[in-house]
Amino acid sequence: MDPLISEILNTEGPATFVTVGADGPHMVATWNSYLEEEGDDKLLIPVGGYHKTEANLKAGSVLVMMIGSKKAPGKRGPGTGFRLTGSAEIKSSGEQYELTKQRFPWARGVLIFKIRQSEQLL
Amino acid sequence: MDPLISEILNTEGPATFVTVGADGPHMVATWNSYLEEEGDDKLLIPVGGYHKTEANLKAGSVLVMMIGSKKAPGKRGPGTGFRLTGSAEIKSSGEQYELTKQRFPWARGVLIFKIRQSEQLL
Repeated sequence: MDPLISEILNTEGPATFVTVGADGPHMVATWNSYLEEEGDDKLLIPVGGYHKTEANLKAGSVLVMMIGSKKAPGKRGPGTGFRLTGSAEIKSSGEQYELTKQRFPWARGVLIFKIRQSEQLL
Repeated sequence: MDPLISEILNTEGPATFVTVGADGPHMVATWNSYLEEEGDDKLLIPVGGYHKTEANLKAGSVLVMMIGSKKAPGKRGPGTGFRLTGSAEIKSSGEQYELTKQRFPWARGVLIFKIRQSEQLL
């Protein structure tokens, strides 16, 4: 994972992501501080609602996430952002879920986001 | 416009928005501080690149934007976010563009986002 991504996640702000279904794009968000990095290409996200996101993912939707921070250094001065594209699934059992539930007792699951493309936009 | 939206825009962070084209969702972002409220249902956004966003909008795509702040008060304590859905067009002339260019000399246009649905998510 790009070290700048960790730097962004250490500043608070909305981490917004989208899936697509038959009725168009479905946009939801979490907070940077809620994201947990796993290995080099995964982000773990606690799942509260996200029911439509889950349905879209089950139907094969891509997941695209935007994270950014005006404080982290970018290509042209302060402020950087990444567009992360990949696939995802929601699990409600297993080790990743147990870890998530320790931090977020309200979590009904964990969204495991596998990043296949990471673009630094600025 | 909900006063909470103004409160969010007064805290810095990424304002992420999506359009959809034949090849799927296209996600881009700006900063809260770059957004200018116009009247009760419009946001003006300076346009640097956004070429694919523009093509998607010309083809009739919806625009969905997420804004949020962990500092602004939400329904369950600190932290709130809004999903804004509507239509948009990019203009490179006219009064709105001239105002945008005064603040952002690099702007090749202004994206005029007309909000038809505003949902407070938390």
